[in-house]
Amino acid sequence: MVPHLVTALNGPLLDLEKKILAATPAIERWFRLEWQEHTPPFYCSVDLRNAGFKLAPVDTNLFPGGFNNLSPEMLPLAVQAAMAAIEKYCPDAKNLLLIPERHTRNVFYLQNVARLIQIFRQTGLNVRLGSLSEDVKEPTNIDLPDGSTLTLEPLERSANGRRLGLKNFDPCTILLNNDLSSGIPKVLEGLHEQNLLPPLHAGWAVRRKTNHFAAYDEVVKKFAKMIDIDGWMLNPYFARCGEINFHERTGEDCLASNVDTLLTKIRKKYKEYGIKETPFVIVKADAGTYGMGIMTVRDASEVRDLNRKQRNKMAVVKEGLEVSDVIIQEGVHTFERINDAVAEPVVYMIDRYVVGGFYRVHAERGVDENLNSPGAHFVPLAFAQQHALPDLQAKPGTAAPNRFYMYGVVARMALLAASLELEKTDPNPEIY
Amino acid sequence: MVPHLVTALNGPLLDLEKKILAATPAIERWFRLEWQEHTPPFYCSVDLRNAGFKLAPVDTNLFPGGFNNLSPEMLPLAVQAAMAAIEKYCPDAKNLLLIPERHTRNVFYLQNVARLIQIFRQTGLNVRLGSLSEDVKEPTNIDLPDGSTLTLEPLERSANGRRLGLKNFDPCTILLNNDLSSGIPKVLEGLHEQNLLPPLHAGWAVRRKTNHFAAYDEVVKKFAKMIDIDGWMLNPYFARCGEINFHERTGEDCLASNVDTLLTKIRKKYKEYGIKETPFVIVKADAGTYGMGIMTVRDASEVRDLNRKQRNKMAVVKEGLEVSDVIIQEGVHTFERINDAVAEPVVYMIDRYVVGGFYRVHAERGVDENLNSPGAHFVPLAFAQQHALPDLQAKPGTAAPNRFYMYGVVARMALLAASLELEKTDPNPEIY
Repeated sequence: MVPHLVTALNGPLLDLEKKILAATPAIERWFRLEWQEHTPPFYCSVDLRNAGFKLAPVDTNLFPGGFNNLSPEMLPLAVQAAMAAIEKYCPDAKNLLLIPERHTRNVFYLQNVARLIQIFRQTGLNVRLGSLSEDVKEPTNIDLPDGSTLTLEPLERSANGRRLGLKNFDPCTILLNNDLSSGIPKVLEGLHEQNLLPPLHAGWAVRRKTNHFAAYDEVVKKFAKMIDIDGWMLNPYFARCGEINFHERTGEDCLASNVDTLLTKIRKKYKEYGIKETPFVIVKADAGTYGMGIMTVRDASEVRDLNRKQRNKMAVVKEGLEVSDVIIQEGVHTFERINDAVAEPVVYMIDRYVVGGFYRVHAERGVDENLNSPGAHFVPLAFAQQHALPDLQAKPGTAAPNRFYMYGVVARMALLAASLELEKTDPNPEIY
Repeated sequence: MVPHLVTALNGPLLDLEKKILAATPAIERWFRLEWQEHTPPFYCSVDLRNAGFKLAPVDTNLFPGGFNNLSPEMLPLAVQAAMAAIEKYCPDAKNLLLIPERHTRNVFYLQNVARLIQIFRQTGLNVRLGSLSEDVKEPTNIDLPDGSTLTLEPLERSANGRRLGLKNFDPCTILLNNDLSSGIPKVLEGLHEQNLLPPLHAGWAVRRKTNHFAAYDEVVKKFAKMIDIDGWMLNPYFARCGEINFHERTGEDCLASNVDTLLTKIRKKYKEYGIKETPFVIVKADAGTYGMGIMTVRDASEVRDLNRKQRNKMAVVKEGLEVSDVIIQEGVHTFERINDAVAEPVVYMIDRYVVGGFYRVHAERGVDENLNSPGAHFVPLAFAQQHALPDLQAKPGTAAPNRFYMYGVVARMALLAASLELEKTDPNPEIY
């Protein structure tokens, strides 16, 4: 059973939902044409925030975990999308090598890996797991709560050094489900004969959030013009500060002045639309993920007065990566609630297709806090009625499928932005 | 609620289900490679018969009705498949012209049309209906039971005669949901600038069942070799008689001798596998559809002693088309039952993807009778659990998703056969 979703949708977003639904033919055609020009990332999940007056992506993950949180009813859709993706890269593929994260004791993450294996097996691929961990020196079994078993195997380069595989397993495609936060492992370098997906520069060793949101700016500009809306409705302001050192307290001026500028711009927009909420910005590492190194700021003075604990929290993200560049991003309130808990929608895509979504629900967090914090227990809640098609006749704001269509559109805009971002940041652009 | 499905699956088919599940990677890769060489029909439905010892397609419909019988949960799958199909033919498409059957008073058929419109609208197309009926001289509304309305509009050729559309509506793609039983209308001829899907030679004015089953023979031969089975398990014997005239009683000898030969071959197979059932053949028009002109024959003598009523029944099919060629096909018993009613699975595909299926359930028919007879009331019953993925661990014969996967494989074999058939019978093959 799925609890009722309580969303405080007010004027502007209802209007947006109406406009997006009415413009479905134009929107779908636009995506279709964009995908003729740009290759979508292999897979992607997008965290959205729905403030009622504004709906925006706040994180675009190119190595998505959490596929296990999608409802089983959506699996055939994922299989079908995966078939389309595989066909594009390697139509005669027999073998897929999946490289998961190293933190293999997280049962939730392992269930995600098991789900990915299930999806790709059903597309007709032999799937095996290769580990980047140096501890995996021979095939290692990990038991899952449902009684099934995952087998991690050590990676092997071929005799001529040109291919990567496992013992007696030569894959056509290597799928990373490891975001490379700790740098690009040597074993993944120089693979030109196989498809390595996503490419290495999609990993957090290279990727920057500001590049992504700069590309998203472009996408929103086109979209907003097409359906005649204020792009701000879908797009958080952002700025960047480099050469920050939280330990040594350098770069605080850049941070404070950008926070101030951003808050001023947001206040202006809030005034324009009569929004009574308190503006805030999110300061987070420009590279990295997992909800570490994230700070909610309501006034520039706050970033000048960081105590030791706060500075330590901001200084490193996953795998101990040192933070030197930060993105300062307009905060988007979350006004979706399931019962009394704050809920943040996450949309999953494979190739150019939305294959499902769920709510990250957190009872103990505020509307302006990050819900994806380490160790935070969130409840994944598969979108209800996500299999239903949008209903143009429904009263705006009342039909879940209409809301999810809007979420799917915004998530695909972030997907398109990721595609542009990867093109622009490709170290070997000539290979396209 | 979906009633429990009672299927008398015995030895050979359980074994087949096991083999097909185990060979999933090889099967899916094979399809993937075949679709690199051959273009699937735009859409297709396949009637299957499951005899427990044998599973075979008995009818491959290239202008499928009945999309309204699929469960709503499967709609996103249909939308996603339709997106892939549209992208292939006309990526910048805005407008789709759908040409339905002429018999517009059939509410069930009209609901199918409404469902097709819903699917294609969600892919981002403006969809309008063009009528082949001469009675439609201006936009004509038809009300549906759910309160919605379909509007039929008269077809119009463009001023230069090169394009087909409606008033103020110039489509990139024209989708036929009319099987052209009554011949190829002049208004559809000579359209070289637009995609006419399926092509005209897929209509019953040109198409022959024997061409389809000859192509299916080829497909089964490859498949049977790949997974090491007797192709007969999936393939009904057939033969053809031309120059039949039921009214004048000519061609009876050809019919009787072919019936006899076929029954002898079937008896031999039944003996080989220890099958106790009584063999039978189906005699039906080589062109045409709608379950008219179909006869169940258990002995050659039966086709020599047709009474006036039987001859009249066989002599014409839909739209008064005269029958001169017949296909004599090995009958496949239907041993699937829902409660006590005989059930025949029908699988729906768009492009190369299975998008759903249902059972045609008929309480008053025998296991060796055609269930798709005119006026017969059948209950469409969406496959239960069709959204679940196959489970290799399940005991053979117990898991519905495994059964449906097998059905999807056999249906896609018929789809591939239709693709080969259309290539071979294309009057303008150079355009490929």
